[in-house]
Amino acid sequence: MIQIRKLDSTAIDFQETLDALLAFEAETDFAIEQAVTGIIAQVRARGDEAVVEYTNKFDRIPNGGAADLQAFEIGQAELDAALAALPDTQRAALQTAAERIRVFHERQKQELQGFTYTEADGTILGQRITPLDRVGIYVPGGKAAYPSSVLMNAIPAKVAGVGEIVMVVPTPDGIKNQMVLAAAAIAGVDRVIGIGGAQAVAALAYGTESIKPVDKIVGPGNAYVAAAKRRVFGAVGIDMIAGPSEILVVCDGTTDPDWVAMDLFSQAEHDELAQAILLCPDADYIAQVEASIQKLLPTMPRQETIRTSLTDRGALVKVRSMEEACEIANAIAAEHLEISAEEPQQWADRIRHAGAMFLGRFSSESLGDYCCGPNHVLPTSRTARFSSPLGVYDFQKRSSVIQVSEAGAQTLGKIAAELAYGEGLQAHARSAELRLKP
Amino acid sequence: MIQIRKLDSTAIDFQETLDALLAFEAETDFAIEQAVTGIIAQVRARGDEAVVEYTNKFDRIPNGGAADLQAFEIGQAELDAALAALPDTQRAALQTAAERIRVFHERQKQELQGFTYTEADGTILGQRITPLDRVGIYVPGGKAAYPSSVLMNAIPAKVAGVGEIVMVVPTPDGIKNQMVLAAAAIAGVDRVIGIGGAQAVAALAYGTESIKPVDKIVGPGNAYVAAAKRRVFGAVGIDMIAGPSEILVVCDGTTDPDWVAMDLFSQAEHDELAQAILLCPDADYIAQVEASIQKLLPTMPRQETIRTSLTDRGALVKVRSMEEACEIANAIAAEHLEISAEEPQQWADRIRHAGAMFLGRFSSESLGDYCCGPNHVLPTSRTARFSSPLGVYDFQKRSSVIQVSEAGAQTLGKIAAELAYGEGLQAHARSAELRLKP
Repeated sequence: MIQIRKLDSTAIDFQETLDALLAFEAETDFAIEQAVTGIIAQVRARGDEAVVEYTNKFDRIPNGGAADLQAFEIGQAELDAALAALPDTQRAALQTAAERIRVFHERQKQELQGFTYTEADGTILGQRITPLDRVGIYVPGGKAAYPSSVLMNAIPAKVAGVGEIVMVVPTPDGIKNQMVLAAAAIAGVDRVIGIGGAQAVAALAYGTESIKPVDKIVGPGNAYVAAAKRRVFGAVGIDMIAGPSEILVVCDGTTDPDWVAMDLFSQAEHDELAQAILLCPDADYIAQVEASIQKLLPTMPRQETIRTSLTDRGALVKVRSMEEACEIANAIAAEHLEISAEEPQQWADRIRHAGAMFLGRFSSESLGDYCCGPNHVLPTSRTARFSSPLGVYDFQKRSSVIQVSEAGAQTLGKIAAELAYGEGLQAHARSAELRLKP
Repeated sequence: MIQIRKLDSTAIDFQETLDALLAFEAETDFAIEQAVTGIIAQVRARGDEAVVEYTNKFDRIPNGGAADLQAFEIGQAELDAALAALPDTQRAALQTAAERIRVFHERQKQELQGFTYTEADGTILGQRITPLDRVGIYVPGGKAAYPSSVLMNAIPAKVAGVGEIVMVVPTPDGIKNQMVLAAAAIAGVDRVIGIGGAQAVAALAYGTESIKPVDKIVGPGNAYVAAAKRRVFGAVGIDMIAGPSEILVVCDGTTDPDWVAMDLFSQAEHDELAQAILLCPDADYIAQVEASIQKLLPTMPRQETIRTSLTDRGALVKVRSMEEACEIANAIAAEHLEISAEEPQQWADRIRHAGAMFLGRFSSESLGDYCCGPNHVLPTSRTARFSSPLGVYDFQKRSSVIQVSEAGAQTLGKIAAELAYGEGLQAHARSAELRLKP
């Protein structure tokens, strides 16, 4: 039996209880911060040599470790071989997923084309979109190595037109995850290096003798990697530092309760801190979902993780109505929001904040995690209030373009000078005034 | 006489010298970090009371300070009065600038409409764009209070459709900058509170009894404000932490050298750390610009700041060709790039990285700073390699929309299950498989 928290939105202390349940603040571990600071300084000072030393040590590279960074290169032939060696069904699944991800992200690229317009006096204004030159993708090694993450991080960069995509992936004990290498081959990663940790982040950010510095680093990692990304931010761009994964299911009580139970499990199985919450106006249905949870949990290989996650951070919430469920969903601003209901669009229209919305009972989050096409890197911990899924736009940037005509300089120059004098910036004013005709 | 550094791109140590000149790393001041951590903790624990205490103290509020936060509210009537009291030319200039900024940012909004498409089996995929609910705008008080910054930060938020825009602006010694209040009236800021510093950032991020928490905080501030923004990032979104401002002028030698000298001054007058660099293939022209600098500097009210900035961080660089100038400009990835040349578009086509490009000799940066329309909040310190001007998109976020049809669930479910089993995530696989028809 698993004890899962049951809440009722009519309870006086509901808001307080919900806030406590949602609260998650990543702790700052000063020992990690300190270690990472040291590693970055060493890599900046000693380049390849430091990267090799740290990698040999932290990843327990066998046979006394590698002699140089060259030894960690994983060449195109090796990637292709990994792809060729996959079971046919797995290779086909990866390829179809990649193609669908590519199609969705091409739509993102089409949307962002930049613009330009010419004013009556000939002044031209616009916005130009250009891809990043070079991007680093961090892929965790070992058990948490997910080929789907390689696709989700690399394909948007590729679609954006990034000049060079460099992937780093640690090979603990010298072991390479073949499915990850196959995914790199499919995604068209330009270079793969078998290094990881803060040393790989530092090498990507600042460059070494054999690694050119990149402009942005994306991808998930452990606490050392997250700390290193925070630390190098500014020298390079980074993606969001992800918190624990979350699912919020808003259900009108018409979906098979086994399906909803399994959807909650699929989030909870990620890790003990993952959060799975159900909002439903139907108390009887909630009881059915709970029964499904009790029935299905013993069948799950990762049941211990699921149990801890659901017990510590999960909840089944009885709400007054689907309208109220949508209000609560906006406050939660979940990473994944399933609206498992008849005519889901009516409820989706009420949602302002969610990383990804899964509408209707056939749209399980797991389909989106792998192969629908939209990205599975999504804002966690209520950051969907202000941030977006990873996308092509994360690998592009905008530049304003301003071409003022001689006539334009006459009208704009007077306005600029007036405001510049008002702000006490006389060189700004004079610079505008010099362009005025006498 | 001012000594300004002269470089030649053919020198053996040119790259090294340039790199050293460009290098800028914001130092971490642990005393500031510690003070800010304490202030934020106090505001989270004691709300309004702490904000009032800190404000009375740090801003030297007269008459023994304010009794409550209500006393710091600056109501709509006061904003309107400030606008009405401006000299006519200044009010007209602010209004015209605001209108032009609005028009440009409306174009940004038009570009980003989201999309949706339906696949053959009825599966619907899309991306929805929604505005942020509530945004905080930080405006510095005292001497560095710039009404143009109020327009540049608030108008994109307004155009995006942000529900509520809350502006905080400290009033040192109780003095309110009337031009800033007038700009707030024009921009349509919803609420103005006369508080600042880390305490204002904390109040916006976490909320107090009388301030609702916002979703994002933007706008420039001193080292305490920057530290506080970094610290609250995650709980709320923030804009980039700006480094010193920079201008790079690429000139073919056909622009009046006085104009180029004044354009360099207009950046250098901002602060001693500002950076102004000229790239030009014509040595004689560089000498003319230097003569203009010597001639014009004594006429500038802010000549001491300009002198320090140009001496410490400026340079006049002789390059081999305009082509090489463009290459160097890409490596510098300047915040402001002026291409002061005949037929500037041919050179603009070679530029990959710049916050804003000013094309042709009439496009002085100062016009863009105030009234061309594009934003003047731009990526500094080479971050234009991976980031963009502030824009409407900073006040919007995207949500993926996934509505899988029953038929779609059959094909996608098999792919997702295959990949999920490959990653050892069985609940993911089962969740997809439950939707398969028997």
